Amino acid sequence: MEEKCPSYTVQELPLILLDAHLSQYSYVGGFQPSQADVAVLTSGCVPPSPPRTLPNVRRWAAHMATFSSVECLAFPPYTLGCKMDDQLSDLVHKNIKMSGEAQNSKKCPKNNKGGESGKGKSGKFTLKTPKGTRDYGPVEMAVRRQVFDTIYDVFHMHGAVEIETPVFELKEVLTGKYGEDSKLIYDLEDQGGEILSLRYDLTVPFARYVAMNKITNIKRYHVARRYREFYQCDFDIAGQYDAMIPDAECIQLVHQVLSRLNLGDFTVKVNHRKILNGVFGACGVPSEKFRPICSAVDKLDKTPWEDVRKEMVDEKGLDSDVADLIGEYVKLSGREDLLEKLKQDERLKNSTDAQAGLADITLLYQYCKSLGCDVHLVFDMGLARGLDYYTGVIYEAVLMAGQTSKGEGPVGSVAGGGRYDGLVGMFDPKKKTVPCIGLSFGIERLFAIQEQKQRAENEKLRSTQTEVFVAAACKGMVHDRLKLIGLLHEAGIKAESSYKNNPKILNQLQYAEDNAIPLVVLIGESEVQEGVVKLRETATRAEVTIKREELVLAVRQRLGKNS
Amino acid sequence: MEEKCPSYTVQELPLILLDAHLSQYSYVGGFQPSQADVAVLTSGCVPPSPPRTLPNVRRWAAHMATFSSVECLAFPPYTLGCKMDDQLSDLVHKNIKMSGEAQNSKKCPKNNKGGESGKGKSGKFTLKTPKGTRDYGPVEMAVRRQVFDTIYDVFHMHGAVEIETPVFELKEVLTGKYGEDSKLIYDLEDQGGEILSLRYDLTVPFARYVAMNKITNIKRYHVARRYREFYQCDFDIAGQYDAMIPDAECIQLVHQVLSRLNLGDFTVKVNHRKILNGVFGACGVPSEKFRPICSAVDKLDKTPWEDVRKEMVDEKGLDSDVADLIGEYVKLSGREDLLEKLKQDERLKNSTDAQAGLADITLLYQYCKSLGCDVHLVFDMGLARGLDYYTGVIYEAVLMAGQTSKGEGPVGSVAGGGRYDGLVGMFDPKKKTVPCIGLSFGIERLFAIQEQKQRAENEKLRSTQTEVFVAAACKGMVHDRLKLIGLLHEAGIKAESSYKNNPKILNQLQYAEDNAIPLVVLIGESEVQEGVVKLRETATRAEVTIKREELVLAVRQRLGKNS
Repeated sequence: MEEKCPSYTVQELPLILLDAHLSQYSYVGGFQPSQADVAVLTSGCVPPSPPRTLPNVRRWAAHMATFSSVECLAFPPYTLGCKMDDQLSDLVHKNIKMSGEAQNSKKCPKNNKGGESGKGKSGKFTLKTPKGTRDYGPVEMAVRRQVFDTIYDVFHMHGAVEIETPVFELKEVLTGKYGEDSKLIYDLEDQGGEILSLRYDLTVPFARYVAMNKITNIKRYHVARRYREFYQCDFDIAGQYDAMIPDAECIQLVHQVLSRLNLGDFTVKVNHRKILNGVFGACGVPSEKFRPICSAVDKLDKTPWEDVRKEMVDEKGLDSDVADLIGEYVKLSGREDLLEKLKQDERLKNSTDAQAGLADITLLYQYCKSLGCDVHLVFDMGLARGLDYYTGVIYEAVLMAGQTSKGEGPVGSVAGGGRYDGLVGMFDPKKKTVPCIGLSFGIERLFAIQEQKQRAENEKLRSTQTEVFVAAACKGMVHDRLKLIGLLHEAGIKAESSYKNNPKILNQLQYAEDNAIPLVVLIGESEVQEGVVKLRETATRAEVTIKREELVLAVRQRLGKNS
Repeated sequence: MEEKCPSYTVQELPLILLDAHLSQYSYVGGFQPSQADVAVLTSGCVPPSPPRTLPNVRRWAAHMATFSSVECLAFPPYTLGCKMDDQLSDLVHKNIKMSGEAQNSKKCPKNNKGGESGKGKSGKFTLKTPKGTRDYGPVEMAVRRQVFDTIYDVFHMHGAVEIETPVFELKEVLTGKYGEDSKLIYDLEDQGGEILSLRYDLTVPFARYVAMNKITNIKRYHVARRYREFYQCDFDIAGQYDAMIPDAECIQLVHQVLSRLNLGDFTVKVNHRKILNGVFGACGVPSEKFRPICSAVDKLDKTPWEDVRKEMVDEKGLDSDVADLIGEYVKLSGREDLLEKLKQDERLKNSTDAQAGLADITLLYQYCKSLGCDVHLVFDMGLARGLDYYTGVIYEAVLMAGQTSKGEGPVGSVAGGGRYDGLVGMFDPKKKTVPCIGLSFGIERLFAIQEQKQRAENEKLRSTQTEVFVAAACKGMVHDRLKLIGLLHEAGIKAESSYKNNPKILNQLQYAEDNAIPLVVLIGESEVQEGVVKLRETATRAEVTIKREELVLAVRQRLGKNS
């Protein structure tokens, strides 16, 4: 065998530079992903699996692989964000230019103010944020809070507790849990006598937590930031329970969050690892190839069947007949009718695995019906989920077409998860396990979709929650206004007033309208003398006069608050 | 002049090792502050201002200086947390032993599970978190969420918006803003052509944000984590408004947060930079020494007057007569009576600054009375606040004795802030300024006090928020339970049920009691047939039978929710 001696080509040179660059920065453009990352990724210089000699490129490439193409398109454009070697800079600019036309037709995100205002170097001090960083303004923060509040509310509705685990885990905790995704784990070389890895998800640390604290049952959520920038948001149930009841709860929870966020139609795809294994076995896949073939099936949502088949046959050495047979099954999707049909399927009839999986999904459908969350549930045999640790039901929620301003087909997965009954046992010295099921929200994508939706609808996004504005019709009433503020706050009502001693009445009413504050409490000298106030609805401009001591009750009623 | 050549003494050797150690770890014990940090700090090896040649020791020492002695005492004990040079390890152990007696009398915090379970090295794989890290369990997370929810609620009550700024700022943004605290700023050497510093507070970045975006008025809050571990939580009002109205709002906000957290009696100390300057001027301090003398006065809460006087005279070159005169004033504290007395004070009568400040505080008292938040307000002439940027009203909230299980005197400052009218203008090319006032909560201290308080009261701290438990009295009712869960969730009621097909009735009622779930909905076969449910109050065990369609209303009424 003649193996070519590795030589450094012109194309490889930037990789070494890139590695040095990425030892200083999180991304090509600095500390925020941008089109520069996309440019370098698509330059053809970066191999699918960078060698160990380029640890920073490996880390970066693995991290970039966690973004979908939709997310990559949503990255802000590249503006000179950090110091860069000339050759690397050339590479970036060449490739940015190549994809430049596509970029130019899109609106430039307005939020890269830091980079933009940094250009003028004539003044002695340029007011800007550090290169590659940005501020998040009130509207962006309000969208995040709204999405999180909705999700937290649903978590609490299900009686979940919250935990937090460290950003790093011992490398051994993470190894052997993720299958082909293991290559995405970012190792930190020897840190004080321990080999550590950056956690890859929140599930394996959760299983470690359950095993370490000898917990027999817990329902917990965990919200964390990855790489300082990206949020992760997980919900899991651990415990030995009767079949499919916690599984149905997870489906219900996804259903509730997506319904409440009101992002339009969605589908929750569901499948079962045992059904997949049953199909693989019945089609003639040797059992040691179940997992690699499962990983290939997992690519079906982004890759045409022909390419997946090629991977099965060429890369994973499967007989082409067997692959074709698998193809017949993984294309199927439906509801209870499909389940019934498969129970009678000649090949699957004798597969214990397949029959057990089909019985589970049938029961899951029944529970989801009782919970009122079955309408969006689709049994999809092409759903595989990449990670090795799943053992039972798996699911993925997909938002349907028309959700984005572009309105072009599904926007992709916004939540996913499944059952992993063996993971906790992998950490227990006696292999004692605790069955688990969980799900993870694509929270950054939900932020982006929510913001886009609200902009598209020209919805006036409130960045405050004020319920009442206290206004005065004449001069010298600042103390009277403050007393009303004190009264309303005391009753738990969100209320504001002007900071001016003698604000103009029109300005005050305008402020309430501009900020969509639903109610205005209006006082003048006669109102104060008579012990009454005027209560005005901003939307209708309707006014009623009520006694001061009845104000709180009246406000609460109009806001739909409990009295 | 003979200056001694610097020589490396035995004591200095560990400093070089310490610097190398701290280049790898955030703290002496790893990634969490511990008694090891206290041991090294008190070993006598670390100079008050470490030289620039030891950048990591400088960073660490500056960071440690931000903890009060109370906070240092609350650090967990040191357990071998990370790899350490023998000499450094000796230093740590020698000094830990020295302070060991004091330590032993206290209860060991139970939360350092990671370190503890890492000892047994007999097994092939020890289940633990990385050295120096820990998990946060449901109770700790529930306390944090409770404190944050209270604070957010008050922020929203005042109509504040949220923003987020980067962890780093250009060094120029931070320089010249903090006075003597400037030495605590952690610089990052040249990062891609820019000199960056880790932000020191959230106030200066806020002023930069206001100036950069040409904002004329905003009321914002910002919650951030410092050094990945510690939360900061700020509220600020920017805008040109009438005197003392926003200032009174800040006092009211502190009052509301501390009242709602129910941590017992507290005092909000208030003073005015103009009053201090007026006093300094009237006593004969040259104006260029106003700021250094103000910094000295700032130490009065931790240092006896004699030492502060010494600093004024010996270090800052003040005449001892002048220092004594200042001493007469800064010891004073009171309410409106003191204000009136000082307005007539012979020395202050002709000081424009002092009279302006006294008029402001008088007006502030009036507004706080109207807002109903003046009871805890104390005019304290010894309050100075260290930072240079304050220009007007300054305040600090202190919890009083008996709040902690030890019950020994005030636990120290839990919030503080003031007016800084010049800061935004420092960033504007035309020096156009926006007056600002703000406050910062000592959020980590509030977490600790709240947790301590709840443990001391043996209060059963709920880590869930479940309102209703759905139970069945007989077998085969899982679908009926799930339907009720669906119904209650649909109505926004937090409800749980057992994951077992046929749970025992006593176990279900016990679960509701153990978890302090206020209501139980109980069904049996006859209830389902008749279309009714039993509604049981967990605390009283009182049961009523109601129609199924009236369940939501009945639950809402009992929970005090709006219908």
